Amino acid sequence: MRRASGPAMQALITKTSAAPMQSSPVPSASPASGEDKQHLDLKLKQVAIDTHLENVVYLHRDCLIYRSEGFQALAKIEVISGTHRITATLNVVDDPYIVGQDEIGLSEDAFRRFGVAAGAMACVRHAERPASIGALFRKINGERLLKDDYHAIVKDISGGQYSKIELTAFLIATNNGELDRDEIYYLTDAMVASGRRLHWPEQMVVDKHCIGGIPGNRTSMLVVPIVAAHGLLCPKTSSRAITSPAGTADTMEVLANVNLEQDRLAEIVRQHRACLAWGGTADLSPADDVMISVERPLSLDSTTQMIASILSKKVAAGSTHLILDLPIGPSAKVKNVPDAQRLRKLFEYVASRMSLTLDVVITDGRQPIGNGIGPMLEARDVMRVLENDPRAPQDLRHKSLHLAGRMIEFDPDVRGGDGYAIARDILESGRALAKMRAIINAQGAKHFDHEHFMLGKLNHEVVAERDGMVIAIDNLRIAQVARLAGAPKVANAGIDIRRKLGDRVKQGETLYAIYAEFPSDLLFAIQQCAKGNGYVIGDEAQISHTYLEF
Amino acid sequence: MRRASGPAMQALITKTSAAPMQSSPVPSASPASGEDKQHLDLKLKQVAIDTHLENVVYLHRDCLIYRSEGFQALAKIEVISGTHRITATLNVVDDPYIVGQDEIGLSEDAFRRFGVAAGAMACVRHAERPASIGALFRKINGERLLKDDYHAIVKDISGGQYSKIELTAFLIATNNGELDRDEIYYLTDAMVASGRRLHWPEQMVVDKHCIGGIPGNRTSMLVVPIVAAHGLLCPKTSSRAITSPAGTADTMEVLANVNLEQDRLAEIVRQHRACLAWGGTADLSPADDVMISVERPLSLDSTTQMIASILSKKVAAGSTHLILDLPIGPSAKVKNVPDAQRLRKLFEYVASRMSLTLDVVITDGRQPIGNGIGPMLEARDVMRVLENDPRAPQDLRHKSLHLAGRMIEFDPDVRGGDGYAIARDILESGRALAKMRAIINAQGAKHFDHEHFMLGKLNHEVVAERDGMVIAIDNLRIAQVARLAGAPKVANAGIDIRRKLGDRVKQGETLYAIYAEFPSDLLFAIQQCAKGNGYVIGDEAQISHTYLEF
Repeated sequence: MRRASGPAMQALITKTSAAPMQSSPVPSASPASGEDKQHLDLKLKQVAIDTHLENVVYLHRDCLIYRSEGFQALAKIEVISGTHRITATLNVVDDPYIVGQDEIGLSEDAFRRFGVAAGAMACVRHAERPASIGALFRKINGERLLKDDYHAIVKDISGGQYSKIELTAFLIATNNGELDRDEIYYLTDAMVASGRRLHWPEQMVVDKHCIGGIPGNRTSMLVVPIVAAHGLLCPKTSSRAITSPAGTADTMEVLANVNLEQDRLAEIVRQHRACLAWGGTADLSPADDVMISVERPLSLDSTTQMIASILSKKVAAGSTHLILDLPIGPSAKVKNVPDAQRLRKLFEYVASRMSLTLDVVITDGRQPIGNGIGPMLEARDVMRVLENDPRAPQDLRHKSLHLAGRMIEFDPDVRGGDGYAIARDILESGRALAKMRAIINAQGAKHFDHEHFMLGKLNHEVVAERDGMVIAIDNLRIAQVARLAGAPKVANAGIDIRRKLGDRVKQGETLYAIYAEFPSDLLFAIQQCAKGNGYVIGDEAQISHTYLEF
Repeated sequence: MRRASGPAMQALITKTSAAPMQSSPVPSASPASGEDKQHLDLKLKQVAIDTHLENVVYLHRDCLIYRSEGFQALAKIEVISGTHRITATLNVVDDPYIVGQDEIGLSEDAFRRFGVAAGAMACVRHAERPASIGALFRKINGERLLKDDYHAIVKDISGGQYSKIELTAFLIATNNGELDRDEIYYLTDAMVASGRRLHWPEQMVVDKHCIGGIPGNRTSMLVVPIVAAHGLLCPKTSSRAITSPAGTADTMEVLANVNLEQDRLAEIVRQHRACLAWGGTADLSPADDVMISVERPLSLDSTTQMIASILSKKVAAGSTHLILDLPIGPSAKVKNVPDAQRLRKLFEYVASRMSLTLDVVITDGRQPIGNGIGPMLEARDVMRVLENDPRAPQDLRHKSLHLAGRMIEFDPDVRGGDGYAIARDILESGRALAKMRAIINAQGAKHFDHEHFMLGKLNHEVVAERDGMVIAIDNLRIAQVARLAGAPKVANAGIDIRRKLGDRVKQGETLYAIYAEFPSDLLFAIQQCAKGNGYVIGDEAQISHTYLEF
């Protein structure tokens, strides 16, 4: 471990021989003196602080080796031990309990990623700027970049070379309208290349995806068992919630294990034609996960990123045919038909360059889909639809059947227009439920009584302030309240919707119930509702209409 | 202090009365129950970690009150105690020594800013997004913003409401070419309005500024005493180095105290017609200081920011007449004459809207000015020029006289073209030196022997690799090496240049010497030189020529 500073020293000696220098006495940093190398080493320790997505390195203010102040103005420094390297932000410590003068500390995740034992020797140096920073600045200055530029940038991003500030700069500089369609293709292609790529031993591998923004919209958990029951190969990997109260992976996790090794997943797909797993372990388009760390706190919805993120994940997962759900509505991501059409064209162009067959479906995004919002509540809705339970939310059922029908029509043996009826038959006959149970059991069922989904023990009902008709429901507000209530981290927290668009209500009648497990969560949710509960009550004539494909 | 959570609760109660809600039992977060308020409070402590420009709040993972995980995905949370509020990023702690389950910790600077005693009770809530975030997103989407938008954004920025990610988004979205000249004026005006504005009891208040990027360019410390000796009022406040190895404030601090209260400064200016102080205490254009925290690590040089930053600081400082030094050269901020002319026009437009008389001077930015780079070495050069010492660097002397001359020509009693001769006479007669000594003594002289500036005890000479002529010197590389050697934090670290553009050298002759105080600093500087020492040796014909006003 004492060789830690070796490579840097070696590089110095090699390069200075080409450019001769006269060295005047340098008491303890002379590159030639072997024993002095040790002087740059500190003892590694883990600091018990979880700094979330940011690597942090801790040095004592009176560190014996480094002038910690000299590093502080920098965005990043590099910690090196043997062949292990990590870049991190510096925090300067004034308490020797946290790190001593002869120690170097790393935050919990950074320590884990660094992969070196506590007590080992490590040294520090000023981090180089990422190799692609020149390309980033050309983009900031409005230039059009080429394929190689995007590959270089994405390689640095997935390698953790970009600071949050640099990441933000990239995302803003490549935001809506800043990239032409070929640049979006280059970016998508680079994102696929940055990670693993799965291959399935079949000609047709189907998938579905929604651009997001609609709470409760858990159609994948219905579409997948339906199309698999029809015989299509649908190895669905999903993300966890990013800004929403639940992702498909969070909701599926209520019912089954979703954290599966790739080999086990392949086995399940071979046997059942489908899976509903978390995609996080598969290293698909890893640059996307890094970019999300900035998109999320910024709530940035960039068309560019949306297209590159979705299509790169799908192509990397080995999909050949994709149904894309594109909801429009006043509080959806896409507000109107012209915007939806523009987005559809861009998706279609990039998909075709990536050799992916794409069917974009424009749907009703004026309100949440289903009743439950939050992992447990959404799982309840999904199971009710599969079980043909009369309490099943009809909008979720109807939309899922339409999407499944469109996907079934990818099958060359199915006549255009027949998909919906086939899907409905699979659902009503109980074959979809049987397929779902098979998938759940294969992935590892969670054992609890599906009849009695245990919702959060605290609850609060939000009521109508006046008589009238529900004429608008704000998706963003509903999602925000459900998140504040604890979803998705608290699986049984969220919202249960009792009134939807077009429903007549009387003052004091419940619009929705909030469920929470922790008092502070419920309080935050109630406070948010007090500022606006997301519902507009008015007259029938005021209800917003929108273009819908079905 | 137990009333800490009062205001939030109050707001809740007030608002829910307007929107009636049915509350089902909420064991310990019921808004109505007075005693439960206390349940949201934690004991405040300072955590001995210096997180630089980022406020960090520490909660134990098993905090008794809050589900710390629920906050973690967020960019920011708000800490509240009585009327004190601060927004901060959350770090989750797993060691009760750092913060206990009933405690809430703040990083050193955040604790200081919060201004509440350790042991007091504090509560936490999800931070609201800044009020101006809508305007930011309109700018990200390419819209033109209006005066009120810029005032709202700048108010939030100077109030610390923007996270680093949001700040970066603003800087990139308002980067070169994204703002028209009126928008740059709105931004400048908003930046002036965000802080204090000084008023001097005279018609004409002169100032000079350089857009930066040229190491060693310490002309202010010569121009100020010369023009003050002529009788102009020149209350110069300067910044410390941002990305350079020394700012005027850092260099002046070698000779005198620069950290002066506004009253004392006004007294000195009244008596001596000038000062050379640090502007950081005066709260002038505070939004600028916040934006620098992102511009620095990104190395972003945005024209927009440059104009708004410089002009807002000058107007806020009460200047009426400004000389602006705009150097051009291959490694200067401005590379060529057309770019310089465009920048000049923009500066002139915004200055005229701000009622500031502006004289832009385009200068030679092909290499560092003077010999010394770093606070102590630059102070040495300045004093040699003032003392008419034969060792004085002639380029620094010549440039300073020209700028002083142009400034003297603001005086309506001076004929156009006479300024240079007047400035030279003031310098050669020793009146400039006398004025400088008076300013130094008034601000509080540092006592050391000016004949023997004590340079860093470690040094290393960088030598020519071949015979030939110095045909290029890279400003950025020279600045980087000087910073790695320790400048400006280590005042006597830096570079002493021995050969300049057009000088003939033989292989092995010294190009420059590096001075450092700490072995690790010298090593970092030497390693950087090994990758390129910033000098190009070639033939006379290859030397770059550039348009110069003098």
